[in-house]
Amino acid sequence: MTSDSRLSWRDVRDRIHEHILTGRYGPGDRLPRDADIAEELGCARSTVQRAMQDLSDSGLVERRRKGGTRVRAEPVTRATLDIPITRREVEQSGARYGYQLIRRRMAPAPRGVVAAFGLGASRPMLRVEALHLSDGRPYIFEDRWICPETSPEVNDLDFTEESANEWLVLNKPYTRLDLRFYAVSANPRLSDLLETEPGAALLVIERTTWVDDAPITTVKAITTPGYQLLTGS
Amino acid sequence: MTSDSRLSWRDVRDRIHEHILTGRYGPGDRLPRDADIAEELGCARSTVQRAMQDLSDSGLVERRRKGGTRVRAEPVTRATLDIPITRREVEQSGARYGYQLIRRRMAPAPRGVVAAFGLGASRPMLRVEALHLSDGRPYIFEDRWICPETSPEVNDLDFTEESANEWLVLNKPYTRLDLRFYAVSANPRLSDLLETEPGAALLVIERTTWVDDAPITTVKAITTPGYQLLTGS
Repeated sequence: MTSDSRLSWRDVRDRIHEHILTGRYGPGDRLPRDADIAEELGCARSTVQRAMQDLSDSGLVERRRKGGTRVRAEPVTRATLDIPITRREVEQSGARYGYQLIRRRMAPAPRGVVAAFGLGASRPMLRVEALHLSDGRPYIFEDRWICPETSPEVNDLDFTEESANEWLVLNKPYTRLDLRFYAVSANPRLSDLLETEPGAALLVIERTTWVDDAPITTVKAITTPGYQLLTGS
Repeated sequence: MTSDSRLSWRDVRDRIHEHILTGRYGPGDRLPRDADIAEELGCARSTVQRAMQDLSDSGLVERRRKGGTRVRAEPVTRATLDIPITRREVEQSGARYGYQLIRRRMAPAPRGVVAAFGLGASRPMLRVEALHLSDGRPYIFEDRWICPETSPEVNDLDFTEESANEWLVLNKPYTRLDLRFYAVSANPRLSDLLETEPGAALLVIERTTWVDDAPITTVKAITTPGYQLLTGS
């Protein structure tokens, strides 16, 4: 038994981190293979893997399928965000969920939607505006555009009972997701729909999805005052 | 050569997804092992792994280290968010970065900070308020609390040249991160600091980190109007 035989993955993580801080492994450098580090430290390879996973989760190193592990040239704060279906989000908070379709119609995609999808020109798409309610009060207003070429089923769906949010998450898995967060002041229509003061600060969660380069949907989820989106790792 | 020998990982993904939609694999069900699916479909195990990774990335299934793969009881929209050091974020946009320390002092942690860290009682912590600038204009105001027990080095750091943001990301890797996003209206002090209209809608990114249950820092990054936080997958 060597003196290092009881190294925990936290010990290994701290040693590798120490080597990064002291410059033994510089920004962008490739780290030794897990097996080699395990041999050097006299611990199991799985212990090194666990340590590397932790350093990767917190954004200090990058793991590549075949390219091994590198020190990030610029560390980042990395988080995984899981956004549930809005119905579930409301139900998980212990409130009663409600849904109200505001409007559903085909229309030429406006410039912002064309740009979000990265398309060259406008084309007719399905716009669905709907309100999600929590205990009878407005919770999120969603303003959504759906590309009917990618989801021809939507021509037969009226979205009066089931939300487009729920139908799409269940039926249209994406291969690419763009997400953006920003704040807007409530304009008269939003303050009316969301029953809030005009000018109130609202968090907007904008999501755009594609399946193999074909646009699926882009949606602005405009939340009510006080709404917080949380993540934990 | 079997008829399925040219299955791509996308074909495999679509087949598994089809089985989830049709209910062969229901919510919460455990899926067969990758090797068994590979054998059934007559493809390589790595092809199944790639397909499963994709279904997991888009939130339809959950992969566990030893527990195999399960269909998520409630699918989610899953995204990985990388938040760079603010200096790098400004520089990557092509602008000139600037930094200004507003105030640095020890103070008893207020209730919100105690709650964010999940502590039982208040204790003295280091509060650092600072402004990040882009081309000489306010970009982000950060209001930060640092726990000196976890980072005793901060007693010797004045944060006049290097921001606490940069020092902490480089020197204090965390094992737990809580992140929340919300919108606030600019109060008089914020509108003064950020040179914006009073009442303007501002996106706030709040981050709290721990290392092995010891609190490191909690920070509100209050952004200027028009700021957008983006992610792509």
